[in-house]
Amino acid sequence: MTQSNRFKSLLEVVNHCDDFPLPGKDLKAYTARVNSLYHFKVGRDTTTLGFVLPEVASKVGRCSGWDINNKSVPKTLTLSGGHDHDSRSEIIRATMMHFKHKRTFGVLEKWRSELKPCYGPTGSVLFSIERAAFPLLGIVAYGVMLVAYTRNGQGGIEGLWVQRRSRSARTHAGLLDGTAAGGVPIRKKPFTTLMSEAEEEASFSRELVARRARACGTLSYFHTRRKEMGGEVGLLQPGVHFLYDMEVPEDVQPRSNDTNVEGFELMAPDRLKWEILAGNVKPWFALAVIDFFVRHGIIHEENERDFVEISMRLHRHLEFPVFGVSFLTNLLN
Amino acid sequence: MTQSNRFKSLLEVVNHCDDFPLPGKDLKAYTARVNSLYHFKVGRDTTTLGFVLPEVASKVGRCSGWDINNKSVPKTLTLSGGHDHDSRSEIIRATMMHFKHKRTFGVLEKWRSELKPCYGPTGSVLFSIERAAFPLLGIVAYGVMLVAYTRNGQGGIEGLWVQRRSRSARTHAGLLDGTAAGGVPIRKKPFTTLMSEAEEEASFSRELVARRARACGTLSYFHTRRKEMGGEVGLLQPGVHFLYDMEVPEDVQPRSNDTNVEGFELMAPDRLKWEILAGNVKPWFALAVIDFFVRHGIIHEENERDFVEISMRLHRHLEFPVFGVSFLTNLLN
Repeated sequence: MTQSNRFKSLLEVVNHCDDFPLPGKDLKAYTARVNSLYHFKVGRDTTTLGFVLPEVASKVGRCSGWDINNKSVPKTLTLSGGHDHDSRSEIIRATMMHFKHKRTFGVLEKWRSELKPCYGPTGSVLFSIERAAFPLLGIVAYGVMLVAYTRNGQGGIEGLWVQRRSRSARTHAGLLDGTAAGGVPIRKKPFTTLMSEAEEEASFSRELVARRARACGTLSYFHTRRKEMGGEVGLLQPGVHFLYDMEVPEDVQPRSNDTNVEGFELMAPDRLKWEILAGNVKPWFALAVIDFFVRHGIIHEENERDFVEISMRLHRHLEFPVFGVSFLTNLLN
Repeated sequence: MTQSNRFKSLLEVVNHCDDFPLPGKDLKAYTARVNSLYHFKVGRDTTTLGFVLPEVASKVGRCSGWDINNKSVPKTLTLSGGHDHDSRSEIIRATMMHFKHKRTFGVLEKWRSELKPCYGPTGSVLFSIERAAFPLLGIVAYGVMLVAYTRNGQGGIEGLWVQRRSRSARTHAGLLDGTAAGGVPIRKKPFTTLMSEAEEEASFSRELVARRARACGTLSYFHTRRKEMGGEVGLLQPGVHFLYDMEVPEDVQPRSNDTNVEGFELMAPDRLKWEILAGNVKPWFALAVIDFFVRHGIIHEENERDFVEISMRLHRHLEFPVFGVSFLTNLLN
């Protein structure tokens, strides 16, 4: 395992995922970028919910139920139609179906018929939107990530259970991913999502996950879509992942039923770090592993020169309202 | 334990510590604030190392070895004299001693004869500065924090060992603090600092701490000094704390030798959360406990409405170069 790697450092891996300009690094660049994008708003509320590319805003802004303002600083794209969750969601659905049929946007080719929530400033869900259409409006996407791990006799971390995607999978072929992971759909709690994903992807019983998995924080980052993700380049994709650790004994092993997944490997931290630097790990999972390494003392200020910067960057403060600003238990199952 | 508390929520506790405007919440307010302050620089390097209040900048800027520029946007205060660590440190020392003798600044009344480092953009230490003078230049301060904790029979967190300060202590009387904590001095590693503090404050042997304490990440925040801290109000104080967890069996208990410390208590998470909301916990330690609660799954997205926002805010991205940007092992002991 030589160091002929894609990334020179873990900070480069973080930079690769979290690549939107940082105000603290270059306020002018950040301000210029933010003002070059359309700020997506709903109704008369002044809160920016996402950033939209000008070429997308000009097309969406011509649809029924939308307003576009090129004169304001920053420019705005507003969902002006609708007055509640259902009526707004219907306008979004009709708009996106229109573009899907016209094949206007590449990202809509991966239509999944999966609805995701968009949270407003008071924590209510303003509307639901098809998963594939998310990046067009630049709103925050939510995911869950489970890392099952084992300890050695001395209490240290022995290995992390990673999924290896099939070399013939359509996306992310051959890359490593978490023990289980997925997006959080509309009206589903993160932990309920985690139990479903762990059952589907790793054959872990819901009872086992409920008993052993522990919430351990979040990742947040602001990604700009690149060519390798398919669809339009430059779409804005802020994201939050809910992280869960699950210590398991050696006899509890994940099993795959999914043809996209080649299988599972119990991977020692050093080896996994090497795979991350080599570019063999799915970007969000790479960040989750780095956060795992930070929380479990595998990387620290004496063995990682960018330790403080990495710790700050794994929890980027997002510009938009986030899940739970006003948490409504009754809304979620 | 009724909820007649000082803070209504944990997010309010975070807001109390991390109170400098956030660019992601209000870019105009952030930009206006940043441009109203003098940007502290060294030599010809363009990197801002700290923010300085105008009334401080105008006084420091008249001293020998300093330049002040009121015409640039943002305005700058530059340490123009000196060419290496020692010569720069000497100018800073002479400047601050001058103000100390003249009793110009209240913060200098607490002169401790303890030197702290200021890191430059390439990770080298640009100069050393007296601990009490730190906030005048608004540069990043570094601390360490140890939390010793016990587990119950089911593997959950039973209690955290907290220090209770004496009700007659000059500062922070009666407040709760970490098992051991302190600032990181010049040329000392965070972990070496931790071992010293744990020995002094909690009577833990260095060997015990070396064997059991685990690095588990950092806190970062940007605080504006208030009246209760003494000295000038409004001085800028960005900070980073290195955090360490230490699981101990019940028979390993901290003991105090310090007259400022009344003693130690093993405090259950619920009780400690209550004390935080009641305002009975030192601000930085309150943040460290909230981070402990996040990492150990005590608070999560289902029982804390501001969970995502809190997780982002405990790791604020700072505008200045931070420790370790280029980590030089040989520099530290």
